[in-house]
Amino acid sequence: MKPIPTSRNKLPPLLAFGAHPDDIEFGCGGVIAKETAAGGAAHFVVCSRGESATHGTQAQRVAEAKKAAQILGATIEFADLGGDAHFEVRAVHAIKLAGIIRRVRPGVVLAHSLIENQHPDHSRLGQLVRDACRLARYGGVKELRRAPPHAIEQLFYYAVTPEAEPVNVTPVLIDVSEPEIVATWTAAMKVHASQAATRNYAELQLTRARYCGLRAGVTHAIALFPNDPLVVGSLGQAGRGARRF
Amino acid sequence: MKPIPTSRNKLPPLLAFGAHPDDIEFGCGGVIAKETAAGGAAHFVVCSRGESATHGTQAQRVAEAKKAAQILGATIEFADLGGDAHFEVRAVHAIKLAGIIRRVRPGVVLAHSLIENQHPDHSRLGQLVRDACRLARYGGVKELRRAPPHAIEQLFYYAVTPEAEPVNVTPVLIDVSEPEIVATWTAAMKVHASQAATRNYAELQLTRARYCGLRAGVTHAIALFPNDPLVVGSLGQAGRGARRF
Amino acid sequence: MKPIPTSRNKLPPLLAFGAHPDDIEFGCGGVIAKETAAGGAAHFVVCSRGESATHGTQAQRVAEAKKAAQILGATIEFADLGGDAHFEVRAVHAIKLAGIIRRVRPGVVLAHSLIENQHPDHSRLGQLVRDACRLARYGGVKELRRAPPHAIEQLFYYAVTPEAEPVNVTPVLIDVSEPEIVATWTAAMKVHASQAATRNYAELQLTRARYCGLRAGVTHAIALFPNDPLVVGSLGQAGRGARRF
Amino acid sequence: MKPIPTSRNKLPPLLAFGAHPDDIEFGCGGVIAKETAAGGAAHFVVCSRGESATHGTQAQRVAEAKKAAQILGATIEFADLGGDAHFEVRAVHAIKLAGIIRRVRPGVVLAHSLIENQHPDHSRLGQLVRDACRLARYGGVKELRRAPPHAIEQLFYYAVTPEAEPVNVTPVLIDVSEPEIVATWTAAMKVHASQAATRNYAELQLTRARYCGLRAGVTHAIALFPNDPLVVGSLGQAGRGARRF
Amino acid sequence: MKPIPTSRNKLPPLLAFGAHPDDIEFGCGGVIAKETAAGGAAHFVVCSRGESATHGTQAQRVAEAKKAAQILGATIEFADLGGDAHFEVRAVHAIKLAGIIRRVRPGVVLAHSLIENQHPDHSRLGQLVRDACRLARYGGVKELRRAPPHAIEQLFYYAVTPEAEPVNVTPVLIDVSEPEIVATWTAAMKVHASQAATRNYAELQLTRARYCGLRAGVTHAIALFPNDPLVVGSLGQAGRGARRF
Amino acid sequence: MKPIPTSRNKLPPLLAFGAHPDDIEFGCGGVIAKETAAGGAAHFVVCSRGESATHGTQAQRVAEAKKAAQILGATIEFADLGGDAHFEVRAVHAIKLAGIIRRVRPGVVLAHSLIENQHPDHSRLGQLVRDACRLARYGGVKELRRAPPHAIEQLFYYAVTPEAEPVNVTPVLIDVSEPEIVATWTAAMKVHASQAATRNYAELQLTRARYCGLRAGVTHAIALFPNDPLVVGSLGQAGRGARRF
Repeated sequence: MKPIPTSRNKLPPLLAFGAHPDDIEFGCGGVIAKETAAGGAAHFVVCSRGESATHGTQAQRVAEAKKAAQILGATIEFADLGGDAHFEVRAVHAIKLAGIIRRVRPGVVLAHSLIENQHPDHSRLGQLVRDACRLARYGGVKELRRAPPHAIEQLFYYAVTPEAEPVNVTPVLIDVSEPEIVATWTAAMKVHASQAATRNYAELQLTRARYCGLRAGVTHAIALFPNDPLVVGSLGQAGRGARRF
Repeated sequence: MKPIPTSRNKLPPLLAFGAHPDDIEFGCGGVIAKETAAGGAAHFVVCSRGESATHGTQAQRVAEAKKAAQILGATIEFADLGGDAHFEVRAVHAIKLAGIIRRVRPGVVLAHSLIENQHPDHSRLGQLVRDACRLARYGGVKELRRAPPHAIEQLFYYAVTPEAEPVNVTPVLIDVSEPEIVATWTAAMKVHASQAATRNYAELQLTRARYCGLRAGVTHAIALFPNDPLVVGSLGQAGRGARRF
Repeated sequence: MKPIPTSRNKLPPLLAFGAHPDDIEFGCGGVIAKETAAGGAAHFVVCSRGESATHGTQAQRVAEAKKAAQILGATIEFADLGGDAHFEVRAVHAIKLAGIIRRVRPGVVLAHSLIENQHPDHSRLGQLVRDACRLARYGGVKELRRAPPHAIEQLFYYAVTPEAEPVNVTPVLIDVSEPEIVATWTAAMKVHASQAATRNYAELQLTRARYCGLRAGVTHAIALFPNDPLVVGSLGQAGRGARRF
Repeated sequence: MKPIPTSRNKLPPLLAFGAHPDDIEFGCGGVIAKETAAGGAAHFVVCSRGESATHGTQAQRVAEAKKAAQILGATIEFADLGGDAHFEVRAVHAIKLAGIIRRVRPGVVLAHSLIENQHPDHSRLGQLVRDACRLARYGGVKELRRAPPHAIEQLFYYAVTPEAEPVNVTPVLIDVSEPEIVATWTAAMKVHASQAATRNYAELQLTRARYCGLRAGVTHAIALFPNDPLVVGSLGQAGRGARRF
Repeated sequence: MKPIPTSRNKLPPLLAFGAHPDDIEFGCGGVIAKETAAGGAAHFVVCSRGESATHGTQAQRVAEAKKAAQILGATIEFADLGGDAHFEVRAVHAIKLAGIIRRVRPGVVLAHSLIENQHPDHSRLGQLVRDACRLARYGGVKELRRAPPHAIEQLFYYAVTPEAEPVNVTPVLIDVSEPEIVATWTAAMKVHASQAATRNYAELQLTRARYCGLRAGVTHAIALFPNDPLVVGSLGQAGRGARRF
Repeated sequence: MKPIPTSRNKLPPLLAFGAHPDDIEFGCGGVIAKETAAGGAAHFVVCSRGESATHGTQAQRVAEAKKAAQILGATIEFADLGGDAHFEVRAVHAIKLAGIIRRVRPGVVLAHSLIENQHPDHSRLGQLVRDACRLARYGGVKELRRAPPHAIEQLFYYAVTPEAEPVNVTPVLIDVSEPEIVATWTAAMKVHASQAATRNYAELQLTRARYCGLRAGVTHAIALFPNDPLVVGSLGQAGRGARRF
């Protein structure tokens, strides 16, 4: 039976999808750490075992992913979309992910950005998750009848590399400046020791977060890209603008 | 002496700039009504007396603007940027507006969008306000030394017509569904009786707000366009996504 | 045998593709009503029976679609692209649609816009139709040899919701202001009674058309998005510009 | 007294603005030739005498422009916006051009595109004309009270070089394939003999028109870029799509 | 056994992918001619035999492609991605192309642009090649274990028609002005005699190259669109800017 | 008399424009250091004395700028465009800068990017420099007759903050990884001790360069944005692509 994420503060859980065992950690691990530190529940769906990468066995990759999820305070499961480096935008995959959404019943969903100039699996998973969020709402999809329809609150995209950041979407910058959040995030990235490039990857992400933080007037921040306009009840809810220089 | 907006809830006031006596009301009057109904202070800076329009004398236009501001619960002042239909992007104008920003010391600033395919005054005022928000922060501008530097929280753009909506900025949708907010907004628009097109204009705006509300799953909403990414402390602050159909 | 649309005025028929039984009606029903009222022939190809929707049986949905087509003066057929919520961009599907194009031999083709942030079936059908219009021209596609190649006059995209409107294409606004056209269109939308959201959907579309009409200086208008630049013989043919406010 | 363009077919005249004595001819001379050959009236407003160019005296440039206008069947006048290479986006200039629009009372207006990576005068004139078209409609602009307000039908932009073509506007392609139209256009370009680069410029324009024609399935075509969506009464009016390869 | 391209100057070979037997020649034949004339090796991978085109048998098309490659100094092979007009973005296809990349071990790779408003095969091949360039680098893809991973230097896109040119990528213009390069290129295009449209196609391409050359201050140039930013060691390496008019 | 930059390697000098005394150093100091270390000449034109900034007297700012230029191996002069925080896009300013271009006769010119959501002076100077590069080529501008026309090789834009980076231009990444280049650049930034934010600014720039370098597979890199497509004689000249993750 799959794990059921539970939240201390009774909010619906955060659901994050990653193509490979380290993508969520590198792309938005700081955001996860921040939410779980505040008592929220988070659940990871990792859609391959990293078996096409240059380094690391499947067993190592899975173990690393489980360890990293634990560090970040998240539960984790693995899904199969054809295997690492074999993702395709197929209805059957979107429906499978929609089934997970109906089971987990998240508020916010996180997924890879849709920018295609990337590891081919990344944007494909982003597209599948976007579609899955819609299919999860449609009552008549027969493969999904096991669980009632579910409408999420918002879908945000994360970018594992700068090239993956969409340019025509205004990001939301999440302040992750607390030293313990940065430390937890860093630890979760370093768990992926099988990956030869881990040191550079972790430096890239911390450099990005510092860079983003300098823009926002905080120590570290992570940019997320909303799939839809944000609806708020008042201007006060809309946050302050990033503009320090 | 200029009016000093005061707020029941001690938050910094909202400051809205409009090129002509009816622009703020038509472009974002519902947002103003909502903020003042919640106890916030709002101040309008109207940068002409509408003297180049086809209908209405200056005296009528000014009286209408004052009445509309009163209905919306805002204070109002008039500024001169060369006269209706004569706005130019000049440093002297941006500095003048920066001086107002330093005096009023707002949190959120509202201004016309930067889209140029509009009444020429509109985007020019948008550009001047954007520049003014920055100049207000620089300590050495000698024309501004009367008041200490001030950094605003966020600049949002409003659009008085659909053509003025920027397409590469993710809007924030402000829910203005409460019937009394819609009624107050409508009343403020109808005050501009000198304008022959008022009926259509008011219908246009209410139609837009209804259209925007249908997207957002509420009765009426108004789209504002942030000048900078929003910085939030957690995902929960980022609002829910608009996606109803 | 499939229906052969015939036109009183001997122009090639209009061919509209929709993913689900109500998409054509909601997305561009007013345009259809206008063309058939002027004596043109229109034919609908509905590519699912709406079986994944929350409400309505397949039989109801098909009956509603047939009734709506009749109200709009169009003939109708159903095509199978894998089933509601299961569309994929596959060569076999594009070739199937190209076969329909060769059989119907339309002048103008209408299809869902290509914007992907939508019901996944919508943009996929748009992509398939765009590709099908090209394949219909190539003489050597062996699956298509039953009918001679056919080059359409123009492909326009419609948008069933505001999110589906492309932002970097200049739309053509079709004036549908005549009260009888609006009435016919409204009736065709209301036929889809099985759909719980029909009332809001119809209001959304009429609100959009009113909004678009206000921009264009007419009562109601529908925006279509051309796939290719328009070729005209003189400036007089290019219509007047929309700019009322 | 200024010339009053008259049209054999009683349509409102075409009004074209150019920054320098040869811009209209190079940018859209074929369109002018086509319209006047069909009996339409055309009027040119040349906003400098080319006095900052490397070659040609002011007297030569003016004589060449007059001769070219005559070949194209257009009347011509000169306006002063501060002199060649000195254009600025000033209200006084826009109002001057609005006065010309009120006097000439055109249907279609043609102007340089708004792309700024060009001769600085070009996009500035484009901006001034766009603004002037709006100011011409406002009844209260006191400098313009001599003539009644006038609303044009449509503003199209032309591009004198490829870099000036906007990329996010769908162009309208005007078929100028008739040999006598191409010949007239070519003759009008060649009149500008003082310009050392004339030969290359003329080849550039004919190459562009041939290139554009190949796209559109005709011999030669010129792309114009509408300032606003086109409003049409039916799909049949919207022209056919350009798609030959 | 497949041909192994060899280079007089020991640089890694140029690898060009085309969907149909004439695409490489029409889209970037001048660039190929220039590189091979300078002693570089070039290899073509043609991914169909043109069997869905209106004119020409498979045998003719293959013979023409071989002859054209020979004229351009390139070796050639054929790959199967499902057949002409049947391309799909499938992992199995990307992996197949990645295998070719590992075997040929190119420096620069050329492929169709990603713009989808085209022959459906074109952008799909572009997407497959982009993905293949990444997959070729990943050490664990089991279908690719026959050859060691390979990282290319750069991927450039070519456009066989103007519609296929991306608008948000800054092109690199390759000067192909030498008369013998133009002659070789023209000869390679004319080899495709089975294609009824060859004359127009060749004229289109030479017109584009002349047009592009006029922009760049040379006789003929071809625009290529880089997939990634260019990394250079100094400003002097970045070439001069195209700006002649 | 103004300094005349001289180059050990006889190439035309590099000419960099900055709005305030520290902009060139922060925006592209590493590129300057690299070019001068290789024997090239560089000249700075600083267009204000920073008199509107919060910190530092004019005398301090000028002294700091001179010292920083010296560290970077560049000559320097000051120009007046109305004063810090007072820049406007005026013909007289563009002509003044064109006069400097004719005097210095540079190959490459560097200037602030055109993105307007910045210190108002920044993009205005970018626009003025872009225009000036064109005016410098026109033989008849009477204010410029003192020196013969001059055509530059290329104009690149630099961005002093992330917000100033254009998103629709493909950057060129300049490798500045050599430790002595980074050290020289850092020293030049630190000279601006009067600026309270200097420490953060310098960290921002080094973080950006590290971030950019990680993308490019080198230690540090700086992105420059070309004003025009690059013209090269062969693919080998176009550099390698940035793509490491």
